[in-house]
Amino acid sequence: MLRSLAVTTSSPSAVGPTPGLAFRTAVAADLPRVVALIADDAIARSRTGEVGPAHEAAFAAIDADPHNELVVVELDGEVVGTMQLTVIPGISRNGASRLLVEAVRVDRRLRGQGVGRAMMTWAHAWGVARGCTLAQLTSDKQRVDAHRFYRSLGYEQSHEGFKLPLPPR
Amino acid sequence: MLRSLAVTTSSPSAVGPTPGLAFRTAVAADLPRVVALIADDAIARSRTGEVGPAHEAAFAAIDADPHNELVVVELDGEVVGTMQLTVIPGISRNGASRLLVEAVRVDRRLRGQGVGRAMMTWAHAWGVARGCTLAQLTSDKQRVDAHRFYRSLGYEQSHEGFKLPLPPR
Repeated sequence: MLRSLAVTTSSPSAVGPTPGLAFRTAVAADLPRVVALIADDAIARSRTGEVGPAHEAAFAAIDADPHNELVVVELDGEVVGTMQLTVIPGISRNGASRLLVEAVRVDRRLRGQGVGRAMMTWAHAWGVARGCTLAQLTSDKQRVDAHRFYRSLGYEQSHEGFKLPLPPR
Repeated sequence: MLRSLAVTTSSPSAVGPTPGLAFRTAVAADLPRVVALIADDAIARSRTGEVGPAHEAAFAAIDADPHNELVVVELDGEVVGTMQLTVIPGISRNGASRLLVEAVRVDRRLRGQGVGRAMMTWAHAWGVARGCTLAQLTSDKQRVDAHRFYRSLGYEQSHEGFKLPLPPR
Protein backbone atom coordinates (compact mmCIF):
# COMPACT_ATOMS: atom_id res chain seq x y z
CA MET A 1 0.00 0.00 0.00
CA LEU A 2 1.52 3.29 -1.08
CA ARG A 3 1.31 6.10 1.40
CA SER A 4 0.01 9.44 0.22
CA LEU A 5 2.30 12.38 -0.29
CA ALA A 6 1.72 15.58 1.66
CA VAL A 7 2.81 17.73 -1.26
CA THR A 8 0.77 20.70 -2.36
CA THR A 9 0.43 21.20 -6.07
CA SER A 10 -1.61 24.36 -5.91
CA SER A 11 1.14 26.78 -6.82
CA PRO A 12 4.11 26.67 -9.17
CA SER A 13 6.33 27.58 -6.23
CA ALA A 14 5.71 24.15 -4.71
CA VAL A 15 8.56 22.69 -6.67
CA GLY A 16 11.04 21.93 -3.92
CA PRO A 17 12.33 18.44 -3.19
CA THR A 18 9.40 16.13 -2.52
CA PRO A 19 9.84 14.22 0.74
CA GLY A 20 10.34 10.53 0.23
CA LEU A 21 10.92 10.61 -3.53
CA ALA A 22 14.24 9.25 -4.78
CA PHE A 23 15.45 9.67 -8.36
CA ARG A 24 17.91 7.38 -10.10
CA THR A 25 18.93 6.04 -13.51
CA ALA A 26 16.93 2.98 -14.48
CA VAL A 27 18.69 -0.37 -14.53
CA ALA A 28 17.71 -3.43 -16.57
CA ALA A 29 15.77 -4.88 -13.65
CA ASP A 30 13.44 -1.83 -13.75
CA LEU A 31 12.32 -2.57 -17.30
CA PRO A 32 9.15 -4.57 -16.47
CA ARG A 33 7.96 -1.84 -14.11
CA VAL A 34 8.78 0.94 -16.60
CA VAL A 35 6.95 -0.87 -19.40
CA ALA A 36 3.96 -1.44 -17.10
CA LEU A 37 3.86 2.25 -16.14
CA ILE A 38 3.99 3.27 -19.80
CA ALA A 39 1.25 0.76 -20.69
CA ASP A 40 -1.06 1.83 -17.85
CA ASP A 41 -2.32 4.80 -19.77
CA ALA A 42 -5.48 5.57 -21.69
CA ILE A 43 -3.65 6.83 -24.75
CA ALA A 44 -0.43 4.81 -24.99
CA ARG A 45 -0.40 2.62 -28.06
CA SER A 46 1.09 -0.51 -26.52
CA ARG A 47 -1.00 -1.74 -23.65
CA THR A 48 0.17 -5.25 -23.02
CA GLY A 49 2.73 -4.15 -20.45
CA GLU A 50 4.91 -7.14 -21.26
CA VAL A 51 8.63 -6.73 -21.82
CA GLY A 52 9.86 -7.95 -25.16
CA PRO A 53 13.17 -8.03 -27.02
CA ALA A 54 12.48 -4.61 -28.57
CA HIS A 55 12.22 -3.07 -25.10
CA GLU A 56 15.45 -4.76 -24.03
CA ALA A 57 17.30 -3.53 -27.10
CA ALA A 58 15.93 -0.02 -26.55
CA PHE A 59 17.05 -0.05 -22.93
CA ALA A 60 20.55 -1.13 -23.94
CA ALA A 61 20.70 1.68 -26.53
CA ILE A 62 19.55 4.29 -24.00
CA ASP A 63 21.94 2.98 -21.37
CA ALA A 64 24.88 3.21 -23.78
CA ASP A 65 24.06 6.76 -24.94
CA PRO A 66 25.54 9.54 -22.80
CA HIS A 67 22.92 11.95 -24.13
CA ASN A 68 20.01 9.75 -23.02
CA GLU A 69 18.79 8.79 -19.58
CA LEU A 70 15.86 6.66 -18.52
CA VAL A 71 14.91 7.88 -15.05
CA VAL A 72 12.86 6.11 -12.40
CA VAL A 73 11.39 7.67 -9.28
CA GLU A 74 10.99 5.66 -6.11
CA LEU A 75 8.76 6.15 -3.10
CA ASP A 76 9.55 3.91 -0.15
CA GLY A 77 11.58 1.68 -2.44
CA GLU A 78 8.84 1.23 -5.05
CA VAL A 79 9.14 2.70 -8.54
CA VAL A 80 6.24 5.12 -8.93
CA GLY A 81 7.31 7.16 -11.94
CA THR A 82 9.47 7.17 -15.04
CA MET A 83 10.61 9.56 -17.75
CA GLN A 84 13.20 9.68 -20.48
CA LEU A 85 15.55 12.64 -20.81
CA THR A 86 17.61 13.46 -23.90
CA VAL A 87 20.16 16.21 -24.51
CA ILE A 88 20.13 17.45 -28.12
CA PRO A 89 22.86 19.87 -29.15
CA GLY A 90 21.68 22.22 -31.91
CA ILE A 91 22.60 25.24 -34.01
CA SER A 92 19.29 27.12 -33.64
CA ARG A 93 18.68 29.66 -30.89
CA ASN A 94 22.36 30.59 -30.73
CA GLY A 95 23.61 27.04 -30.42
CA ALA A 96 21.18 26.00 -27.69
CA SER A 97 21.24 22.47 -26.36
CA ARG A 98 17.71 21.22 -25.84
CA LEU A 99 16.39 19.00 -23.10
CA LEU A 100 13.77 16.69 -24.58
CA VAL A 101 11.43 15.09 -22.04
CA GLU A 102 9.58 11.99 -23.24
CA ALA A 103 7.41 9.25 -21.79
CA VAL A 104 6.58 10.88 -18.47
CA ARG A 105 4.44 8.53 -16.39
CA VAL A 106 3.32 8.56 -12.75
CA ASP A 107 1.69 5.63 -10.96
CA ARG A 108 -2.03 6.33 -11.19
CA ARG A 109 -2.42 5.83 -7.42
CA LEU A 110 -0.22 8.88 -6.86
CA ARG A 111 -1.46 11.26 -9.54
CA GLY A 112 -2.30 14.78 -8.44
CA GLN A 113 0.05 14.63 -5.46
CA GLY A 114 3.03 16.52 -6.84
CA VAL A 115 5.08 13.60 -8.14
CA GLY A 116 4.96 14.86 -11.73
CA ARG A 117 5.91 18.35 -10.63
CA ALA A 118 8.87 17.01 -8.65
CA MET A 119 9.90 14.94 -11.66
CA MET A 120 9.83 17.90 -14.04
CA THR A 121 11.79 20.02 -11.59
CA TRP A 122 14.38 17.25 -11.37
CA ALA A 123 14.43 16.92 -15.17
CA HIS A 124 15.06 20.64 -15.64
CA ALA A 125 17.95 20.57 -13.16
CA TRP A 126 19.36 17.53 -14.99
CA GLY A 127 19.20 19.47 -18.26
CA VAL A 128 20.68 22.66 -16.82
CA ALA A 129 23.59 20.65 -15.41
CA ARG A 130 24.26 19.43 -18.97
CA GLY A 131 24.13 22.90 -20.48
CA CYS A 132 20.60 22.82 -21.88
CA THR A 133 18.97 26.23 -22.21
CA LEU A 134 15.61 25.06 -23.52
CA ALA A 135 13.29 22.25 -22.41
CA GLN A 136 10.77 20.85 -24.86
CA LEU A 137 8.17 18.14 -24.95
CA THR A 138 5.01 17.19 -26.76
CA SER A 139 1.77 15.89 -25.34
CA ASP A 140 -1.10 14.19 -27.14
CA LYS A 141 -3.88 16.68 -27.94
CA GLN A 142 -6.28 14.55 -25.89
CA ARG A 143 -4.28 15.05 -22.67
CA VAL A 144 -5.78 18.39 -21.66
CA ASP A 145 -4.95 17.87 -17.98
CA ALA A 146 -1.32 17.37 -18.90
CA HIS A 147 -1.38 20.55 -20.99
CA ARG A 148 -2.63 22.53 -18.00
CA PHE A 149 0.08 20.94 -15.87
CA TYR A 150 2.88 21.88 -18.28
CA ARG A 151 1.57 25.43 -18.61
CA SER A 152 1.54 25.68 -14.79
CA LEU A 153 5.26 24.88 -14.89
CA GLY A 154 5.85 27.85 -17.18
CA TYR A 155 5.88 26.00 -20.49
CA GLU A 156 4.67 27.90 -23.53
CA GLN A 157 2.19 25.87 -25.63
CA SER A 158 3.68 27.35 -28.78
CA HIS A 159 4.05 24.49 -31.24
CA GLU A 160 2.11 21.86 -33.13
CA GLY A 161 3.45 18.32 -32.78
CA PHE A 162 3.54 15.95 -35.76
CA LYS A 163 4.19 12.22 -35.91
CA LEU A 164 4.61 9.84 -38.82
CA PRO A 165 5.08 6.06 -38.61
CA LEU A 166 8.07 4.93 -40.65
CA PRO A 167 8.24 1.62 -42.52
CA PRO A 168 10.43 -1.20 -41.17
CA ARG A 169 14.04 -1.22 -42.25
CA MET B 1 21.81 33.04 -59.62
CA LEU B 2 20.06 29.86 -58.59
CA ARG B 3 18.22 28.01 -61.28
CA SER B 4 14.67 26.96 -60.62
CA LEU B 5 13.78 23.36 -59.97
CA ALA B 6 11.36 21.58 -62.25
CA VAL B 7 9.88 19.58 -59.39
CA THR B 8 6.16 19.32 -58.92
CA THR B 9 4.90 19.56 -55.39
CA SER B 10 1.25 19.07 -56.19
CA SER B 11 0.97 15.48 -55.04
CA PRO B 12 2.47 13.46 -52.20
CA SER B 13 3.75 10.98 -54.75
CA ALA B 14 6.23 13.57 -56.01
CA VAL B 15 8.78 12.49 -53.46
CA GLY B 16 11.37 10.81 -55.64
CA PRO B 17 14.96 12.05 -55.87
CA THR B 18 14.99 15.70 -56.85
CA PRO B 19 17.28 16.34 -59.81
CA GLY B 20 20.31 18.39 -58.92
CA LEU B 21 19.97 18.19 -55.15
CA ALA B 22 22.86 16.65 -53.22
CA PHE B 23 22.70 15.74 -49.53
CA ARG B 24 25.67 15.50 -47.19
CA THR B 25 26.71 15.86 -43.58
CA ALA B 26 27.61 19.45 -42.72
CA VAL B 27 31.25 20.29 -42.09
CA ALA B 28 32.60 23.16 -40.01
CA ALA B 29 32.97 25.35 -43.10
CA ASP B 30 29.19 25.15 -43.65
CA LEU B 31 28.42 26.76 -40.30
CA PRO B 32 28.10 30.39 -41.51
CA ARG B 33 25.69 29.33 -44.27
CA VAL B 34 23.66 27.12 -41.90
CA VAL B 35 23.40 29.90 -39.33
CA ALA B 36 22.35 32.34 -42.05
CA LEU B 37 19.65 29.96 -43.32
CA ILE B 38 18.32 29.50 -39.79
CA ALA B 39 18.34 33.26 -39.19
CA ASP B 40 16.58 34.08 -42.47
CA ASP B 41 13.20 33.28 -41.04
CA ALA B 42 10.30 35.32 -39.76
CA ILE B 43 9.97 33.36 -36.54
CA ALA B 44 13.47 32.23 -35.58
CA ARG B 45 14.62 33.90 -32.39
CA SER B 46 18.19 34.69 -33.39
CA ARG B 47 18.32 36.82 -36.48
CA THR B 48 21.83 38.15 -36.57
CA GLY B 49 23.04 35.29 -38.75
CA GLU B 50 26.54 35.63 -37.35
CA VAL B 51 28.46 32.61 -36.19
CA GLY B 52 29.57 32.74 -32.57
CA PRO B 53 31.39 30.43 -30.18
CA ALA B 54 28.09 28.88 -29.06
CA HIS B 55 27.38 27.79 -32.65
CA GLU B 56 30.87 26.36 -33.00
CA ALA B 57 30.56 24.41 -29.74
CA ALA B 58 27.15 23.13 -30.81
CA PHE B 59 28.51 22.01 -34.17
CA ALA B 60 31.35 20.14 -32.47
CA ALA B 61 28.86 18.41 -30.15
CA ILE B 62 26.61 17.38 -33.04
CA ASP B 63 29.57 16.21 -35.09
CA ALA B 64 30.81 14.02 -32.21
CA ASP B 65 27.41 12.46 -31.52
CA PRO B 66 26.62 9.35 -33.59
CA HIS B 67 22.89 9.88 -32.94
CA ASN B 68 22.91 13.41 -34.36
CA GLU B 69 23.49 14.70 -37.87
CA LEU B 70 23.45 18.20 -39.24
CA VAL B 71 22.53 17.85 -42.91
CA VAL B 72 23.04 20.33 -45.73
CA VAL B 73 21.49 20.19 -49.18
CA GLU B 74 23.32 21.55 -52.20
CA LEU B 75 22.07 22.67 -55.57
CA ASP B 76 24.77 23.29 -58.15
CA GLY B 77 27.34 23.36 -55.36
CA GLU B 78 25.51 25.94 -53.25
CA VAL B 79 23.97 25.05 -49.89
CA VAL B 80 20.24 25.71 -50.21
CA GLY B 81 18.84 23.83 -47.24
CA THR B 82 19.65 22.44 -43.82
CA MET B 83 18.08 20.25 -41.16
CA GLN B 84 19.14 18.41 -38.04
CA LEU B 85 18.32 14.75 -37.54
CA THR B 86 18.46 12.90 -34.22
CA VAL B 87 17.86 9.25 -33.40
CA ILE B 88 16.28 8.75 -29.97
CA PRO B 89 15.99 5.20 -28.67
CA GLY B 90 12.99 4.79 -26.36
CA ILE B 91 10.91 2.30 -24.38
CA SER B 92 7.47 3.57 -25.46
CA ARG B 93 5.65 2.16 -28.48
CA ASN B 94 7.28 -1.23 -28.07
CA GLY B 95 10.82 0.09 -27.86
CA ALA B 96 10.55 2.38 -30.89
CA SER B 97 13.49 4.52 -31.90
CA ARG B 98 12.31 7.95 -32.94
CA LEU B 99 13.63 10.19 -35.67
CA LEU B 100 13.47 13.78 -34.48
CA VAL B 101 13.66 16.39 -37.26
CA GLU B 102 14.64 19.89 -36.15
CA ALA B 103 15.60 23.19 -37.73
CA VAL B 104 14.41 22.49 -41.28
CA ARG B 105 15.22 25.47 -43.49
CA VAL B 106 15.13 26.01 -47.26
CA ASP B 107 16.64 28.99 -49.05
CA ARG B 108 13.73 31.39 -49.52
CA ARG B 109 14.52 31.70 -53.25
CA LEU B 110 13.70 28.00 -53.67
CA ARG B 111 10.65 27.62 -51.47
CA GLY B 112 7.64 25.89 -52.98
CA GLN B 113 9.76 23.96 -55.48
CA GLY B 114 9.96 20.59 -53.77
CA VAL B 115 13.22 21.03 -51.89
CA GLY B 116 11.57 20.59 -48.49
CA ARG B 117 9.72 17.52 -49.69
CA ALA B 118 12.93 16.00 -51.00
CA MET B 119 14.63 16.80 -47.69
CA MET B 120 11.93 15.13 -45.61
CA THR B 121 11.99 12.05 -47.85
CA TRP B 122 15.75 11.87 -47.39
CA ALA B 123 15.36 12.36 -43.62
CA HIS B 124 12.86 9.51 -43.36
CA ALA B 125 15.16 7.17 -45.28
CA TRP B 126 18.03 8.22 -42.99
CA GLY B 127 15.89 7.36 -39.96
CA VAL B 128 14.67 4.04 -41.38
CA ALA B 129 18.27 3.03 -42.08
CA ARG B 130 18.98 3.61 -38.38
CA GLY B 131 16.01 1.57 -37.19
CA CYS B 132 13.61 4.42 -36.44
CA THR B 133 9.93 3.46 -36.68
CA LEU B 134 8.48 6.88 -35.89
CA ALA B 135 9.34 10.37 -37.16
CA GLN B 136 8.39 13.37 -35.08
CA LEU B 137 8.79 17.11 -35.23
CA THR B 138 7.22 20.26 -33.94
CA SER B 139 6.40 23.45 -35.79
CA ASP B 140 5.57 26.87 -34.40
CA LYS B 141 1.80 27.42 -34.29
CA GLN B 142 2.26 30.45 -36.55
CA ARG B 143 3.70 28.35 -39.40
CA VAL B 144 0.40 27.25 -40.91
CA ASP B 145 1.95 26.66 -44.34
CA ALA B 146 4.46 24.31 -42.76
CA HIS B 147 1.65 22.46 -40.98
CA ARG B 148 -0.13 21.87 -44.29
CA PHE B 149 3.16 20.69 -45.77
CA TYR B 150 3.80 18.15 -43.00
CA ARG B 151 0.22 16.87 -43.19
CA SER B 152 0.69 16.44 -46.95
CA LEU B 153 3.61 14.13 -46.16
CA GLY B 154 1.34 11.94 -44.06
CA TYR B 155 2.18 13.38 -40.65
CA GLU B 156 -0.57 13.33 -38.04
CA GLN B 157 -0.94 16.68 -36.25
CA SER B 158 -1.68 14.86 -33.01
CA HIS B 159 0.30 16.64 -30.31
CA GLU B 160 0.73 19.95 -28.56
CA GLY B 161 4.32 21.20 -28.40
CA PHE B 162 5.64 22.91 -25.26
CA LYS B 163 8.86 24.86 -24.69
CA LEU B 164 10.42 26.32 -21.58
CA PRO B 165 13.61 28.38 -21.38
CA LEU B 166 15.99 27.01 -18.76
CA PRO B 167 18.26 29.18 -16.62
CA PRO B 168 22.01 29.25 -17.33
CA ARG B 169 24.11 26.62 -15.64
